[in-house]
Formats: sequence, C-alpha cells, structure tokens
Amino acid sequence: MNEFELIARLCRHLPSNPSTVVGAGDDCAVLDLGLADRRLLFKTDAVVAGVHYRPEADPNQVGHKALARCLSDVAAMGGVPTHAVVTLGLPRDYALDWVDGVYAGLGALARRYGVAIVGGETTTSPDRTFLSVALLGWVEADRCVLRSGAEPGDALFVTGELGGALRSGRHLTFEPRLTEARWLTEHHAVHAMIDLSDGLAGDVKHLLQSSGCGAEILAEALPVSRAAREAARTGGKTALAGALSDGEDFELLFAVGARDAVVLLDGWKARFPEIRLSCVGKITQDPGVTVRDRTGQTAASWDGYVHFQNS
Amino acid sequence: MNEFELIARLCRHLPSNPSTVVGAGDDCAVLDLGLADRRLLFKTDAVVAGVHYRPEADPNQVGHKALARCLSDVAAMGGVPTHAVVTLGLPRDYALDWVDGVYAGLGALARRYGVAIVGGETTTSPDRTFLSVALLGWVEADRCVLRSGAEPGDALFVTGELGGALRSGRHLTFEPRLTEARWLTEHHAVHAMIDLSDGLAGDVKHLLQSSGCGAEILAEALPVSRAAREAARTGGKTALAGALSDGEDFELLFAVGARDAVVLLDGWKARFPEIRLSCVGKITQDPGVTVRDRTGQTAASWDGYVHFQNS
Repeated sequence: MNEFELIARLCRHLPSNPSTVVGAGDDCAVLDLGLADRRLLFKTDAVVAGVHYRPEADPNQVGHKALARCLSDVAAMGGVPTHAVVTLGLPRDYALDWVDGVYAGLGALARRYGVAIVGGETTTSPDRTFLSVALLGWVEADRCVLRSGAEPGDALFVTGELGGALRSGRHLTFEPRLTEARWLTEHHAVHAMIDLSDGLAGDVKHLLQSSGCGAEILAEALPVSRAAREAARTGGKTALAGALSDGEDFELLFAVGARDAVVLLDGWKARFPEIRLSCVGKITQDPGVTVRDRTGQTAASWDGYVHFQNS
Repeated sequence: MNEFELIARLCRHLPSNPSTVVGAGDDCAVLDLGLADRRLLFKTDAVVAGVHYRPEADPNQVGHKALARCLSDVAAMGGVPTHAVVTLGLPRDYALDWVDGVYAGLGALARRYGVAIVGGETTTSPDRTFLSVALLGWVEADRCVLRSGAEPGDALFVTGELGGALRSGRHLTFEPRLTEARWLTEHHAVHAMIDLSDGLAGDVKHLLQSSGCGAEILAEALPVSRAAREAARTGGKTALAGALSDGEDFELLFAVGARDAVVLLDGWKARFPEIRLSCVGKITQDPGVTVRDRTGQTAASWDGYVHFQNS
C-alpha cells in the first residue's frame, strides 16, 4: 500500500461537520467558521531528519523548508497564510545552536509573509529530529481554488522549472509561490490548482482525479531545470524523466480556460519577468495522461505513471 | 536547559501579527480573524512511541490520547473544538491494523465532540512512530479564560483526582474536560485556568507566573487518586508527591473569586455528581508556592518545585 492508498483508506472514516467545506483530499482543508465572504484554510505537514533533509543540513534551511511546504499548500488554494504552530521533536542530546537555527529560518520566512508563529511545542524524539508545522490562512470564498475545477479544453500551466530539486538543494530554499498565486486568482479565473511536491507526473493525477478529466502533456514544453539536465548527463534518468518525477519542486500546476492562456502569459511576463510560466498541455475529457514528444504521441497509462514515479 | 526554558528561549524570537490576541505561552493561541464576538483557538501537540505511550499500547488509545491532549488545552480556554489535522510518522514496516486502530480512536473521540478531522498526512519516520495533532476551535470573546487572570484571594480548584495516571493507564483513556469547562464559564467567572499535563506542582507555577501571584496549597485538600496511593504503598514517592508531580492528569486547575466558591461547589455537585471538584488552596499576593500539611506550614520554594517535579 503506497502513501496515497493509505491516506485514501484512512480518509474514509474521518469524521466531518457542517463547517467543513472541503476536508482531507485537497492542498488544504477549507472551513466556514462564520465569516461571510472568507473561508479558513488549514494544513499540516512534517519534515523528518534523514527523510526530508540530511542531518548535516543547515538548520536555517530546515526551518525554512518545514514552513515553506505548508505555505506552498496555502498558495495552491489562492490563500493568504496567517498563523502557524510548530512541534519540534528533539533527541535528548540536541544542540541548542541547531534549534536556534531552525527557529531563525522559520521566523524569517514567517515574517516575510506576515505569518505569526503562535505556539512552539517541544517533545522528546529519541532517535531523530522532526518538525511538524500546522498552518492557518484564509481566502475569499470566490477566489478559493480547488483541485477539482479543471474542464476539458483548459490549458495546463506550470510555474518555474522542474526536476533536480534534491540535487540542487532547491528543496531546502524554495520560495513558496504565495505572491504569484494571489496575482493569478486576482487577474484570472483559475479553474484548478495544486502544488508540485511529488513530481508533475504524480501530482497531475491528483488534479485530474479530483476533476474527473485527463490531460495531454507536451514533453517539449516542460520547463526542465538545469539540475535535471546535469543529472541526466551523469547517468540515471533522462532530464525529461527528472522533470516529471524528481519531486520537491513546490511549483504550481494549474488549469485556466484556453481563451485566457495568451493574456495570462503576457500579464505574467510583465509582472514576474524572472519566473518562467509554461503552458505544458491541455485538459482532456478522456481520463489518463498522454505525453507527446518528438517521436509522436506516447500513451502513458495511469498506472504507468505511478510506476514511473516510484522508479 | 529544561523544556520550559527552551520554549521561553525560542518564543522570544517568534513573529507575531495584529490578529494574534495571545501567542505562545497559554494553553492555546487566541486569534482574532474578524468574527465580532468569537476568537479562534489554535493548538498543536504530539505523542511519540516510547515517550508518550508504550509501543505495545492499544492503538485505539494512542489515537485517543493524541487528540485528547489537544482537546484538554481547548477545554482550559473554555472553548469548543471544531477541526483537527493529523500527521502520522510511520516506520516503513508499519502494521496496517495498528494505523486503522489509531484512526478509529481518533475518530471516535472527534465524533463525540463534533470535531472534523480535515487532513491526514503520513510521512516516513524510520525508527519510531509519532502522531502530531493540530486543533482549531473557538470561544466567545467574553468567555475566553487565560492563565493570567488569577487574583490574590481567589480560590483555587481542581477537577477529578491527581497522580498515578501512567500507572493506572488513565493517561491513555482520559476524557478531556470540555463539557465541564463550558459549564464552568457559562455559570461562573473563571479568572484563570490551565490543564494539568506536568503535575499540579509544575503547572500551578505556569498559572501563577502568568498571573503574577503566588499560592497556598492545602495538602489535605488535594484529591489524591487511588493509583497514587497504591504506588506509594509499593515504595517510591508518597501519595501526596505523586498527586503533585506524576503528571498526565489532564484535569483542570482554575481560580475563581472566593465569594463564588460555595455556590460553585454546590452547582458542580448537582451537574457533575460523579466528578470530584476540590478547593485545594488560594491565590496569594506573595509569589511562590506554600504547601500546608498537618505538621504546619511548609514553605516550598519556586526552584524547589522545579526540582521536585524532575525528581
């Protein structure tokens, strides 16, 4: 049973209540706590030593990453983060400097986006450190973007560049796309959005599954990162495979009506001249994902991509 | 550096923002997100295998405890819990039955109090399991009880019985005092409240420190549990010491005006005939904690109690 099957199994039995607009299964939960035109966003995520970062990693970057992952999820809803609480699991022989570094990294990122850190629990974790962050935010009810709104014919866009984030260290230093997502939902009708944590090949499936659609991806349109190209040169997977499956990109993948695509690209270039925005394909009625490359059309089955992702 | 010193050190540098009414340092953070007469409550807590529960513990009870700890903190603010998110760190060889059990325990407790579980993350934790819960709730602005409102002359009350929770297994099965706390703040002016997780001797200090007061505790008024008495019979610390320092009681300690004490006791007996409520002392102007027993008055220094708690 992989992570997604386990989560799906667990989610079946989770209790809900009337103030829950969207529960588990999107980038954030969406809650209606009585504010007329706003919804609350609620999210949690954790990083574990040796799993999400090397023990020798810069503690400042570890703190940054732990919070940035949650912020990226709020970005994927079009939201504004407001408050975080942090649980830090520490071995008994922890280094105080390391903990100070983690909190400096957390604090600097939080300040940049006006996020208050309103609770700091510490607990003993004898074998290895972990850092669990829960984040609260809000979004205008009419600007909340779910995974489920993609429609056949929509253009599929991705921000930034994909692949090689673990190799380049970008997974520890990435800036969550909060400003970009707010701009997107202010100026364009974004039908569906998700942040890329497991690689485009895996995450596009979550968006398509929620929307009940398929997609055609144009291999040559994928914004392959320099790190993914370099990795391909030294063996292992191709640069394209890296861009599709390396994971930890924390870029945004989103669908807009085909008619909006050109205006969106022009507006983006003017507003964010240093960040790539790529139209990487389109939403189809037929389920499944098809990748088109120079040699013509290559059908990639749903399962094929799960396998691909894990290979 | 003990846990409280570490938290105090970390809290100095945490960013805040205008919607934060109370940040780190109370049972929950208190947030003003624009609801006229309500505040939001935000809390996180974690349990770690081998630290907060034995690996062989009933997974149902592990899930119960992980959520109940957070619910107890919402109770200590006089609040109503609404939504939880859960991060589950699992070794690669986890047992699916165990995970199902944890979620059954979480879910049953959540349902009992109308709490929706709106996100369920899983992550790899190679050596040992952990469970991190973040909880959201609300409280009427004029019924929110902080640690800081105790006044000299106030009567100090504690619910239930103290000591031996680890021995009796109660730390895995306790029912958070949500109903009782709501009744208290509906019918009485509760000046200050805290939930007892580290033992009365330790936790009363947090309340007193926040309120800038001291306290006199009446040793003979302390509701010593049967488990603490049994433990004393088989050696180790006295029953009184157990009641003061065993921890994991998850009862409520609170201060009300001395004039309200008798009415409160009468009302409580009528409403909760099966749950003890004990007046265990009073708030004093002089800082520090004094314990009075049969032999007369025994001064216990502030530091003495920290030491006591750790012994």
